[in-house]
Amino acid sequence: MHRTNIPSSHPRAKSLYIRELLVNGFKNGMVVQEGLIAHGRGETFDYLLGEGTTETAYTAIKAACSLLLLADHPVISVNGNVAALCSKDVVELSHLIDADIEVNLFYWTEEREIAIEKELKKMGAKKVLGTRSGGSARIPGLQSERRIVDQDGIYKADTVLVPLEDGDRTEALVKMNKKVIAIDLNPLSRTSKAATVTVIDNVIRALPTMAIEAKQLKQKKGQILKKIVNEFDNTKNLSESLEIIRCGMNARQR
Amino acid sequence: MHRTNIPSSHPRAKSLYIRELLVNGFKNGMVVQEGLIAHGRGETFDYLLGEGTTETAYTAIKAACSLLLLADHPVISVNGNVAALCSKDVVELSHLIDADIEVNLFYWTEEREIAIEKELKKMGAKKVLGTRSGGSARIPGLQSERRIVDQDGIYKADTVLVPLEDGDRTEALVKMNKKVIAIDLNPLSRTSKAATVTVIDNVIRALPTMAIEAKQLKQKKGQILKKIVNEFDNTKNLSESLEIIRCGMNARQR
Repeated sequence: MHRTNIPSSHPRAKSLYIRELLVNGFKNGMVVQEGLIAHGRGETFDYLLGEGTTETAYTAIKAACSLLLLADHPVISVNGNVAALCSKDVVELSHLIDADIEVNLFYWTEEREIAIEKELKKMGAKKVLGTRSGGSARIPGLQSERRIVDQDGIYKADTVLVPLEDGDRTEALVKMNKKVIAIDLNPLSRTSKAATVTVIDNVIRALPTMAIEAKQLKQKKGQILKKIVNEFDNTKNLSESLEIIRCGMNARQR
Repeated sequence: MHRTNIPSSHPRAKSLYIRELLVNGFKNGMVVQEGLIAHGRGETFDYLLGEGTTETAYTAIKAACSLLLLADHPVISVNGNVAALCSKDVVELSHLIDADIEVNLFYWTEEREIAIEKELKKMGAKKVLGTRSGGSARIPGLQSERRIVDQDGIYKADTVLVPLEDGDRTEALVKMNKKVIAIDLNPLSRTSKAATVTVIDNVIRALPTMAIEAKQLKQKKGQILKKIVNEFDNTKNLSESLEIIRCGMNARQR
């Protein structure tokens, strides 16, 4: 359709490659138009963060993995953008931490749900929850489609990993006394502030890093994992990420 | 298609309304997927700026309008996102400053060009340049599709208004000794740094404000306009916008 591709000399080649994954997800029916725009919002924060996993993010990743390994019933929530960007990483992490995978969409259609389930199964997921075939439950106090969750998944989970979440649902899940782990690029978002542990990083880098980290932490005793969780301060961690963004802006100004 | 719309309680209703304009532009064939993502990038900066036209932006708008009114041959360059968000404002401003309108696309297809031309004419544009029916010229040193410009439009213009531009082309236009006025939400972008005057504002607010300002400045003498242009310092103005973003981050952190 397009007469040309991005010139190879383009200074944002890596970021444009991620975009391509998302645009493919759009063509496959997993991603909605609004998801493309939301991705762009994240791109700006990633650009300001320097498009790499920071030491600060790495500290949050360790706490997140510890929390997931300590959980009785962890669930990974997957939306269209997550499916398009990192289905394979979601499945790998789910095996390592023994978590369920559940599809949860803001703009729900059956077609999207099926497309995402198909992609996750292609990448090795044995079971995908939240596909409305089983019983479904409601998150109290939420208006959006994301309130509808699987009775045996997010509804019953004690710990939920929500990569790319909206603020309303994060707050509602915390109110249900769940531990919530968010992956978000905006350290100022309601999601980031409300979550138990927030990883300020691009999902495309954070999830594979979490898999490596989970493999190592699995060998450790529960006490050590608990210590890591207790020593983690989400507010302080978010402040550090914000400081990195500020410094990045200064560097780019010159 | 979607089972629900955004809940009315959503804290980002205004931003979501702008998104809707863009998504409509996508459905009408004017906007590409990459344009949706690019819009999201801007959304983040707008969010950090407080989603309002700042005093700093207003200073740049006055300089931009003065420059356009002093020009012998001003041209407004229109891409898909600009057409979707503010075709009417582009046409109104073009009448006030006696400028040509030219379509210029990074992801060029004939269908997009036709859809955008149609929209601009619907909004009252008498003539739309850059539609390949006339002679076309090349901007030296550019690889992308945006190098192809109208012989009688951007190629010959002394002043070009580029709302939502890419850095490569801004730099190339400046090298051709043209005055370039950019509207951009990122004060750190190559476009912002390279342009003669950069308005750090959302096009959806900046263009109508420019029309109001142009109406008033049209009454003034050339000397006064020249004074406004001479007193404007783009680097200083960008620093001020960046400072507003920094303060906004501090306020949102609390």
